This record gives sequence, structure tokens and C-alpha cells, in this order.
Amino acid sequence: MAVPARLRKGRARATLRGPQETAMRPTVTPDLGLAEELFATLRDASFEGVGITREAYGPGERIAHAIVSERARALGLEVAVDPAGNLLLTLPGADRAAPVLVIGSHLDSVRQGGNYDGAAGVLAGLAAVAGMRHAGFVPACDITVLVARAEESGSWFPTSFPGSRAALGRLPTEALAVRRLDTGRTLAEHMAEEGFDPDAVRAGACLLPPARVRAYLELHIEQGPVLDAAGIPVGIVTAVPGARRLRAARVLGEYNHSGATPRRFRRDAAIALAELAYRLDEAWAALEAAGQRLVCTFCVLATTEDAGLGKIAGEARFQLDVRSVDAASVDALYAALHRLVPEIEARRGVRFELGEEVRSPAAPMHAGVQAALARAADAAGVAWRSMPSGGGHDVVSFAQAGVPAGLLFVRNQHGSHNPQEAMRMEDFAAAAAVVTGWAVAESVADRPG
Amino acid sequence: MAVPARLRKGRARATLRGPQETAMRPTVTPDLGLAEELFATLRDASFEGVGITREAYGPGERIAHAIVSERARALGLEVAVDPAGNLLLTLPGADRAAPVLVIGSHLDSVRQGGNYDGAAGVLAGLAAVAGMRHAGFVPACDITVLVARAEESGSWFPTSFPGSRAALGRLPTEALAVRRLDTGRTLAEHMAEEGFDPDAVRAGACLLPPARVRAYLELHIEQGPVLDAAGIPVGIVTAVPGARRLRAARVLGEYNHSGATPRRFRRDAAIALAELAYRLDEAWAALEAAGQRLVCTFCVLATTEDAGLGKIAGEARFQLDVRSVDAASVDALYAALHRLVPEIEARRGVRFELGEEVRSPAAPMHAGVQAALARAADAAGVAWRSMPSGGGHDVVSFAQAGVPAGLLFVRNQHGSHNPQEAMRMEDFAAAAAVVTGWAVAESVADRPG
Repeated sequence: MAVPARLRKGRARATLRGPQETAMRPTVTPDLGLAEELFATLRDASFEGVGITREAYGPGERIAHAIVSERARALGLEVAVDPAGNLLLTLPGADRAAPVLVIGSHLDSVRQGGNYDGAAGVLAGLAAVAGMRHAGFVPACDITVLVARAEESGSWFPTSFPGSRAALGRLPTEALAVRRLDTGRTLAEHMAEEGFDPDAVRAGACLLPPARVRAYLELHIEQGPVLDAAGIPVGIVTAVPGARRLRAARVLGEYNHSGATPRRFRRDAAIALAELAYRLDEAWAALEAAGQRLVCTFCVLATTEDAGLGKIAGEARFQLDVRSVDAASVDALYAALHRLVPEIEARRGVRFELGEEVRSPAAPMHAGVQAALARAADAAGVAWRSMPSGGGHDVVSFAQAGVPAGLLFVRNQHGSHNPQEAMRMEDFAAAAAVVTGWAVAESVADRPG
Repeated sequence: MAVPARLRKGRARATLRGPQETAMRPTVTPDLGLAEELFATLRDASFEGVGITREAYGPGERIAHAIVSERARALGLEVAVDPAGNLLLTLPGADRAAPVLVIGSHLDSVRQGGNYDGAAGVLAGLAAVAGMRHAGFVPACDITVLVARAEESGSWFPTSFPGSRAALGRLPTEALAVRRLDTGRTLAEHMAEEGFDPDAVRAGACLLPPARVRAYLELHIEQGPVLDAAGIPVGIVTAVPGARRLRAARVLGEYNHSGATPRRFRRDAAIALAELAYRLDEAWAALEAAGQRLVCTFCVLATTEDAGLGKIAGEARFQLDVRSVDAASVDALYAALHRLVPEIEARRGVRFELGEEVRSPAAPMHAGVQAALARAADAAGVAWRSMPSGGGHDVVSFAQAGVPAGLLFVRNQHGSHNPQEAMRMEDFAAAAAVVTGWAVAESVADRPG
């Protein structure tokens, strides 16, 4: 995990025009040694033999917050915890009353995940403000590193970004009632058990009301292979895709003897589902060929436990995940789904139950923040490209709250949510330099972007 | 379960030309009251709330054998148990040294199955010999009702018909080493635990060496809907299909983020399997359209436990069951399989592991026995049709041993291997009359058929 010396040079030249220190132009470089140290400490505290596990509102996340919080105190940052347990590490600015710049991400992980998903964004923020501290740079406004709780909704609490939404005072009451997938206890119960205050969260109490946030930036490892394949270390995200998802869809047919039931008598749930999946995949390919950008995934596609050799499957279940930054593309694929379902039902004598559909709108990233990130990358000599995100991140909470928000991707090998995720430290160094440069420039600019 | 009086009249007129009693032409009718009584007793002893469970070489089968064996003793039949625990209930014939007629089936059931699969054949045999007893009919040769062990290979011991193969002294040693799917203990261990003699079975000891068997007849409920759809109570089976099966096939791709991984980077095991299943189903339809008769079933088709919303599936597994009485049809479908696999692998970046293929040859039923069954049905005024079987049955063991063998289907609703299986007693009565008529005629004929 050592960073070659040449890479430590990635630095951001700041032009400071704050009220008190108009003439100072310090060179601020992110404290990569600090980041390396914390990556190692976090990993040691949460490696469980296969991968990294940091349970949201559980021991893994609690220990990670303690590690980062202690280190922030040693750096002389202000440490605060909001009613939801989000951690705010603040480098005070010259004008304490001015809206703050927030750099954030999360420290929880999926079960048996990697060390970088989430942590890279937190440590990039910490490296940036530590670098400012070391350089004696006082930003015009406060710069807060936000460590949001419970971002990994697929593993713990099945609701989007409860920590960062609560950080903004925008977590709806019903989200406090969702149950952690493994424990079955509610988010409110887990919050209270960790010593936080779900009643205050419910009442909208927070430390970062949107009007107090000047801009938000999140650094995150890219969860796909696009940057790696393109040979580019950093991506400036244009938008987080919207999605339409089926979490509990089923096909109901009839169990029958696989030898004794001729084709015309069958109501085969397995082959009906295979046809739907294959033909929807064909519909996706056709949309892509027509220039649309989207992804369509049958994440789960499975006959049930009753299935077995000698039987025609009477039931199968599936989960479908369709995403695009362009809602029309998602809708076009769903139109194909809704055309195929009745056709297959009629021909194969089965019945589809699509179940509840979960929709999330696309979140475009702020154009001004994208432009500022591009300037910071160019200034630091870091190659970058624009790209859509694939997954959702805490940045969505800020974008939806009307805060100018941006997302910076770091090249990463082997995807995320698995123990093999493998961001190179030289890429992290490049991205941290962009974050630092952006924050320095942003803290003195007249307005975001 | 009461049989209407008019149906009890189904009777077989026997022409007896045995050495001692050449002039006698008794009217022999099956003892349907006995069958009804035993269906009810078996059901009461093995209904467990949802369906019928009679574990092979376990309590369910043991109790069923005891019930039938006790009733046979009361009828004055000779009761014998062979080294494998098969039960032989014999009505002595005039010539005890002559090869015997065997009417057989099994009493084990799948877990949560129905009361008729297997039991109908045993009780039809018992009703036939009881009817002979009541009529004072002495057959020329012994007539033995064989209650074979462990026929339900999909539920208990994954090897074909170990009971009836052992009854003929033809169970290969390796079959004694297969393990029961639920207990993990071997067939030999289970045999010994029930008080039988696996070493003698291994040495080929038996009570029915093939040369001692004049002919074998099995009555079985049809496991598909063909007779019910055609409105015909009885089917005379032409052949048991051969099969080529994959029990543990897999597709290996790569788990990736479903949002962040564009189409061209994917190695999606789920969609690769869906394509294989759908296109092989299309190939089946094309073969059928060209006049071939076969069935093709993806009995299991499933992403693994690692799958979940937000992930592209990195692995999926499947079980494939292809059957036909015509080996060339099965081979034609496998040729399509072997064309599709490398094509899908190359296009989708996945790898198929088809695993071990299990083959079983088709077993044609003896033409003479088929003809004799047709004569018996016509004589009893029972409508019938010729048809292939879908599943395998103990009759295959006899056919493969070179014994003239036949299989008679009874119309049945809702398939088999489930608690809803619903043979009507009037159809059982019609089929039992055919079995009785066949046995009476056969026991006096010069040669089988």
C-alpha cells in the first residue's frame, strides 16, 4: 500500500481570495500518508478472513467511525456527531457563518466486501483537509468531511442512503421503520442501540440543513471496469442513473412430471422465465443499437427449492434491475417487459407476478461542480473523462436536496462489493489531488462551480 | 373411495387349459374391496399432513410392506422376502416348477407424494390373485406379486430401480454404495439397518432369477395428462423412454455491479443460461414440428445464493432432462446443446461446465405382452390406447433382464409425485380387470403373449 514518492507530488495550487488572506497562494497537497495509514487501520479492524465487513449501525461501522474520529481530533479538526450518528469532521474556515463545503462518503461496507468502497471518499476528504492544515491554509468557509452512516442498502437497511438523508434532515419517517436484512430490527432500533437519537432524526434535527451546504463532493471507486479499460485514472460523473427494479417477481406454472408431460400440456415456469430474460436482453441490445444507454440485469433468476430432476418447474422467481441516466430508456425497456409478459403467459400457460416495483429517479450532477472538477484535474495534471455513474451514492441525497453536488470516480480493478476490489494507491493519489484542488478553489470562489 | 356396484362387475373370463383342470373356465374378478381397504390403510399409515411419505428403506416403506404382507398371509398367499427386502406374495400354481408370472410395483413414495404412485400396481396384483383365490382358480404356474423396494430414485437413492434389479439378482455392486439423498448413508447400510442382507445382494442372491420369470406386468398410474385429456381409462405402454440427463451443470461468469458494468464488459451467467434454455426449447419445438417425439426440461435453472439485487450473476446451475423412446431424437437435441454452448460461451464470455451426463437406454415393452393386454382389455370391455411412457418404472429392470414385460397405465389426474394425484377408483377397477384377465389368460397360455 506504499505510495511511490513521485506520486506524492500530485498537488493542487490554490488561489486564495478569502477576506483575511487575499495575497496567500499556498500549495496544498493531500496527506497521502494519513490516508495510507487509515486504509491499513480500517482494514485491520474489519478484515474477517475473506473480505471486509463493516455492518451499518453495527460493530464494523462503529469501530471505523471511532478510528477516523480519533485521527481527526489528533489533526485538530472539530468533531461532531449528528442525531443519526453521522460523523462531521470540520476544518474551520475564516467565516464560520458561511455555508460549508462538504466532502463525504461512508465507512460501512457490504458483507465480505473490499476496503475502498466508501472509505476512499472519507479518507480523500480527510487527506485534503489534513493537507490544508499542514500547509497552514485557512479556507474562507468551513470544510466538513462527512462520514455518512449506512450507505450499503443492499446489505443492511433496504432504503436509499438513510445516513446522508438524515445528515440533511431529510429522512422520511417510514425509512426509520425499515428492518436490517440480517437482524430484522428497525433502523430506529439500531440507531438507538448505538446511542443515537431516532426521535430527533424523525423531527428533522441535523447539522447540515441544505441551505447551510455550499457544495458537496464525493470521491468513490468506480464500481465498473470503464476507467480501467480506458486507461484513465479519474472519472467526472455526469449523473447517477435512475432505476426501476423488481425485488420479488415470480412466475407461476405447474409442477409436472418431466417425462410424462408432453409439450402442449406444460406450464413450465423455468422456461417461461428463461424466455422473458432472453427476449428482454434482446430488447436491451436493440435499444443500445439505437443509441440509448441503459443496463438491464436479471440479478436473480431461479427455480424454487421444490424443483428437481424429473419435474417441470411450477414456480420461479427473479429480480430485475434496469437503470439509466435517461428515464425514457428505462421506460422503453419496461414497455418491452409489459409487452412480453402477457404474450408469454398466453403461450406458455403461466402467470407472472411482478410484485412491487421500486423506482428511483436519476440524479444529474451539478454542471458547475463538474466544470470545477475538470479545472482541478487539469491543474493537477490528472487525466479524466466524463462518465455516468452506474450505482447510487450518498451524493444523490445532496443532489435531491438541491445542493450543488459532484461525484468523482477513481479507477478500480475487479469491481466493488467483493474482496478483490483493488484500487491502486497511485490512482487514489491522483483523485485526492483533484479533490484537494477543488476544495481549495471552491472555498474561495464566489459561488459553486 | 367407494366403488360403484356397476363397476365391480368388470370381470375377466378365463380360459384355463392347465394340465390338471383343462375343462374349468372360472370367472375371475379382482377383489376391489381388498384394494380399497388397503389403499385406505396405507394412506392412514403414511399421510403426514400434506401428502404421503413412504421413505425407501425407512419407516414409511417398512410399515407399508408390513400392512400388505399381513393381508397377503390372511389371504393364504405364500409370503417371502428376498435378501434386498423385496416382498414376494405368491399364489401357488399347479406346476410349482414352471416359470412364474410376476405382477409388481413398489410401495415407497416421494416425500409428500400421493397414495397411488406404486401402490396401485401392488394392490392391482393383490386384487387379481385374491380374486383367483376367491374363484377357486388355480393357475398353471405360480403368480407372484412383487413389492419392489426403493423405486423413487429421485427422492431417496439416486440409482435406477435398485429393488427390482436386486429382485432379479442383477444389482451391480456400485449401486449398493449410492447414498440416500437425505441421510447420506449408503443403500447397503440402509438395507442392513432394515434387517436385510446387502452381502447376499452383492453376490446376486435372489428369488426371481430372470429365467424363472415367464412374464412381468406392472400397473402404474399415468404420471402425465394424456389419458385424462383423451378420455380413456387405460394405456398400454409401447416403450419406456431413454434419457440423457445433466444433474449438476453450471455456467460460470463473473459477479459485477449491475449498474456500473456496461453490456460489453459483462460475463452474465444468468442471461447465458436463459439463452441456452430458451434456444434449446426452440430446438425441441423444431424437432417436434419435424415429427420427432421427445421431451426436454430444464428442471432446475437457478442463480446461486451469492446472487442479489445490484449484482450481475457470476454463477448459475441447471439440471437438464431429455427423454424419448427414440434415441436419435434425444441425440438430436444434445447435438443442438453442444452447438449452442460454445456459441454462447464465445459471445457472452462465460464458461459452461455440463458435468457428468447420466444416460439410460429406452426399454421397449414386449410386443406379445402388449397384444395380450389389448386382448384382455377388449375382453373386459375396457377402452384403451397405446402410448409411450414418460417416466421409468420397475418394469425396466425386467425388460433389461430379457423378461417379456408390459406396463399398463391407469388414467390419473394432477400428475404424480404430489399430494394432489387423484386416480379414480372406477379407472383402477377397469385396469385391475385387465391385469386379472391378462394373468388368468397368461398363466394357461403356451408362451408369453
